[in-house]
Amino acid sequence: MRGMNTPTLEDHLRDLGLAARAASALMARASAEQKSRALVHLARLLIEQEAALLQANQQDLDQARSKGLSGPLFDRLVLDHKTLVTCARGCEQLAMSPDLIGEISGLTQQPSGIRVGQMRVPIGVFAMIFESRPNVTIEAASLSIKSGNACILRGGSEAFESNKALTALVQEALLAAGLPPLAVQRVDTTERQAVGLLIASPQWIDLVIPRGGKGLIERISKESKVPVIKHLDGNCHTYVDASADVAMALKVVDNAKTQKYSPCNATESLLVHEAVIEAFLPEMAKRLLAKGVELRCCEHTLGVLQDALPKLGVAEGALGALKLATEQDWYEEYLAPILSVKAVAHLDEAIEHINHYSSHHTDAILSENHSHVQRFLREVDSASVMVNTSTRFADGFEYGLGAEIGISTDKFHARGPVGVLGLTSLKYVVLGQGEVRT
Amino acid sequence: MRGMNTPTLEDHLRDLGLAARAASALMARASAEQKSRALVHLARLLIEQEAALLQANQQDLDQARSKGLSGPLFDRLVLDHKTLVTCARGCEQLAMSPDLIGEISGLTQQPSGIRVGQMRVPIGVFAMIFESRPNVTIEAASLSIKSGNACILRGGSEAFESNKALTALVQEALLAAGLPPLAVQRVDTTERQAVGLLIASPQWIDLVIPRGGKGLIERISKESKVPVIKHLDGNCHTYVDASADVAMALKVVDNAKTQKYSPCNATESLLVHEAVIEAFLPEMAKRLLAKGVELRCCEHTLGVLQDALPKLGVAEGALGALKLATEQDWYEEYLAPILSVKAVAHLDEAIEHINHYSSHHTDAILSENHSHVQRFLREVDSASVMVNTSTRFADGFEYGLGAEIGISTDKFHARGPVGVLGLTSLKYVVLGQGEVRT
Repeated sequence: MRGMNTPTLEDHLRDLGLAARAASALMARASAEQKSRALVHLARLLIEQEAALLQANQQDLDQARSKGLSGPLFDRLVLDHKTLVTCARGCEQLAMSPDLIGEISGLTQQPSGIRVGQMRVPIGVFAMIFESRPNVTIEAASLSIKSGNACILRGGSEAFESNKALTALVQEALLAAGLPPLAVQRVDTTERQAVGLLIASPQWIDLVIPRGGKGLIERISKESKVPVIKHLDGNCHTYVDASADVAMALKVVDNAKTQKYSPCNATESLLVHEAVIEAFLPEMAKRLLAKGVELRCCEHTLGVLQDALPKLGVAEGALGALKLATEQDWYEEYLAPILSVKAVAHLDEAIEHINHYSSHHTDAILSENHSHVQRFLREVDSASVMVNTSTRFADGFEYGLGAEIGISTDKFHARGPVGVLGLTSLKYVVLGQGEVRT
Repeated sequence: MRGMNTPTLEDHLRDLGLAARAASALMARASAEQKSRALVHLARLLIEQEAALLQANQQDLDQARSKGLSGPLFDRLVLDHKTLVTCARGCEQLAMSPDLIGEISGLTQQPSGIRVGQMRVPIGVFAMIFESRPNVTIEAASLSIKSGNACILRGGSEAFESNKALTALVQEALLAAGLPPLAVQRVDTTERQAVGLLIASPQWIDLVIPRGGKGLIERISKESKVPVIKHLDGNCHTYVDASADVAMALKVVDNAKTQKYSPCNATESLLVHEAVIEAFLPEMAKRLLAKGVELRCCEHTLGVLQDALPKLGVAEGALGALKLATEQDWYEEYLAPILSVKAVAHLDEAIEHINHYSSHHTDAILSENHSHVQRFLREVDSASVMVNTSTRFADGFEYGLGAEIGISTDKFHARGPVGVLGLTSLKYVVLGQGEVRT
């Protein structure tokens, strides 16, 4: 916590802001070698200092238990050997990946003789506001270092001691590489007003990245005076077209829904072309019911399934997991073993439904019809549009982008998984030999 | 003006918003051929309908004159044959340029087998808020059509009739090409509250582009609930390094300051390395004074010039245009025959001064020293950084980007001249053959 010599929250945040601005100028001109050295050093510290880190984490866990925290919220708070090793490997991978800062692209000569291109540069200072999982400290810090930015981290109060210990290691690693330790800082208080002050400080902060519940993100988006990279929710669709390969569709939809229920890229809504309902849906439903998935169906598909499933040997009792969907279901991100199911009469209806109800995160078509695939790719207005594969692939590592700091459902600046590139900007460089404008 | 059946401003803007959203979905899937056809048709209408356009413009001019408007403000309001021909040529050029919408880049196969790339798509709906010059209606409309967006235009009240007549032609051209005419609309009222309502409507508007005075842009940036591409001001610097080619520096600085005083890319501040002051500055000042430029100098350069200029034959009377700069001068965008002049002891001082006082629009170094050039390019945090050429080149056409809708001094999304590309976004496309995530 802030000491007695730091009387107000405003003073504390101004100190953080001033230090971040100063550090960002140094980070912007740091060499690739220095940034890699800091990341490799950090990886080593995460392994070497495991005992101290787990001890700090234990304080948070004790505190959480005394407050009655349990279940997934408690689990997400836990730092263990495996998490630390994963964090360390992530830092090493980033260290070895190419440094994109300073790269000049598209340098072409213009009729006047000047050569014009674009140079990739850091954004400056970003603030990351997150809840619960302390390893986000390392993910954010390592991406910040690699991209040549400075950052201010504001983790959840429940992980205060863990985040404090992790940030101290990051600063030690920066110092060891000859970089400014205050390039990564944390808000040293659990006072709630800190978030409001951070997002109202464009003089210090160029970008805000909230990660957490929908309520937190909506509030920050609404109130921020600083650009926000936001990821609201993932109401992802898979549309099974009339021409879909049924065997492939059974496999892909199963994966998209049941491989894991909690990620934002899991499919929450299944659209099925009327022509393929008989051939596909009963068998699909049978498999999903067997895994304990509840199906919230439109009238048409509900009727088909209630009729067909008993003939496939599904017990009467299991049919209780078939329910009639409400209008609200089409908007829902369940993050649970629930799937909404809807019949559509044609491709246009599928595209319109998705563009209306989707959260513009990730939507997929399963189809062998080339024209339909082209139209779906072009007309569905989501950060990721997929063909003949599982929405679960929407992820920075699966896209070959490396670690991600979030998945943007915005259209502005960064869209989809946001990694190092999303933390940079392009400025124009113009090289002349004395040309003047006439 | 809005008719009697449109009772409130809120209703009018909701109508515009709903129509824009509907039109944007159709524009996003318009063919390149249709968009080109609309632009070529618009070019023809601008020429054919000259008489009617000039008549509408005359109403605005009469109104302006009766309100006592004169000088540059009045001049900017005038539509004439030459302006219309320029607008028409711009539309034809856009029609012939490649269509970027739907382009897929970087499609590469990942270890899982999926292929991941990015597709360029329109932003959706943008609102353009501008003052005075009616030809901005055509610039914004043509870029909106080419980029597959819909737009809502809010021009100045003084150009109301001109903008109305121009927008009607745009809608006629859209209709003729089989595109939705309401893809380009205008706010049909001069009520001031319209701007406040527009920028508070993220449900209809994805992006706001203000073009006008600093006051307007600051207000919109502060209050907008929608992302803003903003261009605040152009306090551009030219730094003459110790190793500069003096003959080149004389030519380039002259051009950067005096080729035209009003553009935002004109140089407003000259930094000179101490080692080159004697060889460069008196001759430079002599030329600028002869063109009527006032020089606001730091103490050091003022002393040098007061001493040296009489020896170069500059009359005593002309020395009145040499003044001592105040702190405020280093921040100033004069847009006038005034230049601030400052001596710096080394490259670091030049970079620090620019990063502190510049508006991050365009800054140039004149130097033959390779390391200094590299550091300047990398460390100066502006939308355009230039070497050995005139800041006046910071312009969409000079950069080979074609027409621009503004010049962004932000780091987020679009930076520097914003043309068709700045009105688009990239979404991920993922092509599979039944892959699932394990």
